[in-house]
Amino acid sequence: MDHLSQSLQDRIADIHRLLEKFRVESYLVSTGFQRKPDLERVLIERQQDAELERHLANFHAADLAGLLEVVSGEERQRIWTRLSPQRRGDVLLELSGAVLTSLVENMSHAELVAALQDLDADDLAYLSDAIPDSAFHAAVNALNSEERSWVHHTTAYNTDSVGHLMVSEPLVVQPTQSLASIQALLRTQKELSINTEKLFVADNRGHLRGTLFLRDILLSDPDCSVAEVMKDNVVAFHPDDNLNAAAHAFERYDLISAPVINERGKIIGRLTVDSVMDYVRESSEMEALNVVGVVETEDLFSSVWKSARNRWLWLCINLGTAFIISRIIGGFEGTITKMVALASLMPIIASMAGNTGNQTAALVIRSLALNQIGHANLSRLWRKEISISLLNGIVWGAAVGLFAYIFYQKFALSLVAALAMMLGFFLAAVVGIGAPLALERLGLDPAMGSSVILTGLIDALGFMVFLLLASIFLV
Amino acid sequence: MDHLSQSLQDRIADIHRLLEKFRVESYLVSTGFQRKPDLERVLIERQQDAELERHLANFHAADLAGLLEVVSGEERQRIWTRLSPQRRGDVLLELSGAVLTSLVENMSHAELVAALQDLDADDLAYLSDAIPDSAFHAAVNALNSEERSWVHHTTAYNTDSVGHLMVSEPLVVQPTQSLASIQALLRTQKELSINTEKLFVADNRGHLRGTLFLRDILLSDPDCSVAEVMKDNVVAFHPDDNLNAAAHAFERYDLISAPVINERGKIIGRLTVDSVMDYVRESSEMEALNVVGVVETEDLFSSVWKSARNRWLWLCINLGTAFIISRIIGGFEGTITKMVALASLMPIIASMAGNTGNQTAALVIRSLALNQIGHANLSRLWRKEISISLLNGIVWGAAVGLFAYIFYQKFALSLVAALAMMLGFFLAAVVGIGAPLALERLGLDPAMGSSVILTGLIDALGFMVFLLLASIFLV
Repeated sequence: MDHLSQSLQDRIADIHRLLEKFRVESYLVSTGFQRKPDLERVLIERQQDAELERHLANFHAADLAGLLEVVSGEERQRIWTRLSPQRRGDVLLELSGAVLTSLVENMSHAELVAALQDLDADDLAYLSDAIPDSAFHAAVNALNSEERSWVHHTTAYNTDSVGHLMVSEPLVVQPTQSLASIQALLRTQKELSINTEKLFVADNRGHLRGTLFLRDILLSDPDCSVAEVMKDNVVAFHPDDNLNAAAHAFERYDLISAPVINERGKIIGRLTVDSVMDYVRESSEMEALNVVGVVETEDLFSSVWKSARNRWLWLCINLGTAFIISRIIGGFEGTITKMVALASLMPIIASMAGNTGNQTAALVIRSLALNQIGHANLSRLWRKEISISLLNGIVWGAAVGLFAYIFYQKFALSLVAALAMMLGFFLAAVVGIGAPLALERLGLDPAMGSSVILTGLIDALGFMVFLLLASIFLV
Repeated sequence: MDHLSQSLQDRIADIHRLLEKFRVESYLVSTGFQRKPDLERVLIERQQDAELERHLANFHAADLAGLLEVVSGEERQRIWTRLSPQRRGDVLLELSGAVLTSLVENMSHAELVAALQDLDADDLAYLSDAIPDSAFHAAVNALNSEERSWVHHTTAYNTDSVGHLMVSEPLVVQPTQSLASIQALLRTQKELSINTEKLFVADNRGHLRGTLFLRDILLSDPDCSVAEVMKDNVVAFHPDDNLNAAAHAFERYDLISAPVINERGKIIGRLTVDSVMDYVRESSEMEALNVVGVVETEDLFSSVWKSARNRWLWLCINLGTAFIISRIIGGFEGTITKMVALASLMPIIASMAGNTGNQTAALVIRSLALNQIGHANLSRLWRKEISISLLNGIVWGAAVGLFAYIFYQKFALSLVAALAMMLGFFLAAVVGIGAPLALERLGLDPAMGSSVILTGLIDALGFMVFLLLASIFLV
C-alpha cells in the first residue's frame, strides 16, 4: 500500500497553513460550517492514498487546482493519478497556463479524452488552446451536432476576442410575454448557468431588445409584461470586440453578464464576468513578467532548462544593448584614462536617468492600458513630463554636481556632471513617453521587455552625454 | 452665453473616438439601440453649455467619471460645474484616486454636502477616506440613526479589510419559509441592490445557514421550503479578513456576493464583486507604479510640482545607491587607470545581472501575491533559481568573455569578465529572491520600489565583483 511521502504531507500542510493565514474559509465550501476542521492533521496522521483520495474529494475544483499549482511535478502527478476523469476535467478548467500544460503533456490520449468527456461545449472551447488537437477533436466529436458546431464557431474567433470566450444562450424571452409565463417557463428548466443574473429579451427575429433581471421577475407583479419590467439600456458586445476593452466595460458598468450580438443586433451568445476576469488576471500577470522579459508564465517548479530558455530572448537583447553601451564607453577610453573620476561618476547619471525614465514609462503604460491617452491630450502629457524632467534636472543635477565637487574638488567636473544629469533627465522623459507609444503604435505590447529596452537606451544616452561633455570641456 | 472651448470639444471628440476604437458600446447604456449616434459631432457643432449639459445627462455616471479622468483640470471644472449635486454624488463614487481628490479639493463645504446628500450609508462609507471630515460628518448626520451607526461601524474597520467595504444586508430569510412566501416577501420590496444574485439564509438567531439563489427560487416548486433549495456550502468572510485574500476567493469560486459573518457565525453584512474588483484594480495599478517608485497614483494632468515631488522619495533613494556604487568604483580608480578597458566592460556585468535579478524578483513577487510560496517549497525555489543562475552564468559568462576577447585580445581580462559575470548571476538570483521575501517578512509591499533597490544592489555587487577580480588577477 502506498504511503504519502513526507514532502507531500509538508506541501499539503503548507497550503492549509496558507489558507489559514489568510483566513479565506475555503473549507466552508466543502465542509459546511465547521470553522477549523484541521484537514491537514488528518492527512498527515493517516498515511494512506485512499485517505488522500477521500480528502481531495472534498476539495472545490478551484482549490484542487490551487493545490496542484504549489506542489512539485512529482507530487502533482501523485495527486493527479488519484482523481477521477470527471474531476480531472473540472480541475483542468481551473488551472493556470504553465501547470495546465505540464499536466496535459503527461496524460495519454485516452486519459485526456476521458477527462474531457463530461465537459460541455463552452468548457471544451475554453480549453481548446491548451490540449492537443487529437484529444480535442475526439472530445468534440462526442458532443451532439448543435454543441459541436458551437465549439467550431467560438474557437474560430481570435483568442483575445469576445467571441472566443462567449457561451451559448439557450433561454431568450420575448417582450410580449408575461412575467407569470416566464416563471412557468423557468420552472421547466433544470438549471440556469452560473452568472445568470438576467435573461436576454429579443423580438421574434432574435434581435436584442433589452434585459430582464431575475430580481425584477421576483419583485414585480406576475401580470406585468416583460416589456414593462425589462431594462432597455444594455451594454452589449460584438464577437470581434477585444477582451481587454470588454473587461473595462464589465468593471465600469459593474456587469455580471452581457449579451453578445452580431452586426444586425441578433443575440448570438453571452459573456460572463468570471471568464472575463480570468482573462484579465492571466494577461495582467503576463504583463508584469513581460516588463522584465520573462516570455511565458513559468510555474514555480518548471524545469531549470525550460525556465532558463524562457528568459533568454530578453537576456540576449540586454546583452546587445550592454555591448553597445560598452562600445560607447570604449570610444571615450582616452578621456577616462586622463580623468578616471569619470568612470566612477558615470553610473550615477545613467542610474538616475534610468529611474526617472522607468517612472514616466510606468505611468504612460498604465494610461495606455486604461485608454486615457488620445491624440488631443498627448501634447499636454509631453509638456508635463518634459517640465518635470527639467525641474528634476535642476534639483538632482545640483545634488549630483555638489557630490562630485565634494569628492573630487574640481569645479569644471561637477559642472559637467550637473549638466549631464539635466540632459539625462530630459532624454529619459523623451524615451519614457516615446518608447511605450512607439511600441503601441507598432501594434506591440507597450510593456513587453520595457525595462530592458528603456534602461538600455537611457543608460546609453546617459553615458554618451556625460562622456561627450567631459571630452569637450574637461580633457 | 458660454461657448464650448475648442480644446474641450477636442477632448470630448477624443474620448468618443477612444470608445469607438474599442467598440465598447457604452452609448447603448444611454441611448437604447442606436448603434452610432455620433454624439461627438452634435457636441462640436452646437457650441452651447446647455447642449453640453443635456448630453452629459445621457452619460452613465461611470462614463462621466471616465471623461473627467482624461481632461485637464480647467475642462474638468467646466464639466463639473454643469452637473447637478445628485449627479456629482454618483460620479464621485466612480472616480479613481487622484482625480477624486482634485475635484473634492475644489468644492466648497456646502457643495460637497449637497453632492453627498442623496448617497446611502454604504456609499458614504466608501467615500469616507476621500472627503474632508467636516463634509463627511454633515452628510452622515443627515442619515437616519440606523444608517448613521452603520457608517460608523464600517468606517471603523481598516481600509484594506472586508469590513470597510461590506454593505448592509436588509433581507435575510429563514430555512423554514416556503419559496412562495419568499416570493410574496420579495414583491413587497421596492428593489434589491445590484449584485444580489442570492439571498442569505439564517436561523432565528441570525446565524448563517446557507444561501438561496434567486435563480433557484425561480426554477423550483413554490411549495418547497428554503431549506430544501438553499445551498449550504457557502464561502463567507469575516470583517477583519484582508481584501486581497477576499478578492482571490471571489475569483477562485466565481462569487458575485458573499455573506460577512462575525465570530459566532451571525450575518453582519454583504461583500459584492464590484467593490472587491475596484479595490483590486486600484491596488494592482498602485503596485505597477510602486515598483518604479511612484508613490501615489498621479492623474495624467496633476501639476508638475505635485507629480515631481511624488517621485522624489525613490529618486532620493536611487541617488543614495548610485553614490554607493560610485564610491565602490572610486575605490578601484587605480586599477581602472592601469586598465581602462575595465570601465567599458563593467556596465555589461552590472546590466546583465540586473536583468536576471529583476526577472527572478518579478516571478517571486507574483508568487507571493498568489500566496504560492510557503516554507515547504521555498528551499526548492532557491535551488531552482540558483541552478538557473549557474546555467545562465556558464552560457552568458562565456558570451561576455568571448566579446571581451574580441575587443581587447587579452585572455586574462576575458577570463575575469566571464568569471565576474557568473558570480554576478549568482548574486542576482540571491538578491532577486531574498529582497522581495525580506520586504514581505518585514510587513512591507514586496513590490515597493523593488526596481530601485534591486537594480542598485545588484549593480553594486556586479561592479564590486568585477573590479575586485580585476585588481587581484590583472593589475
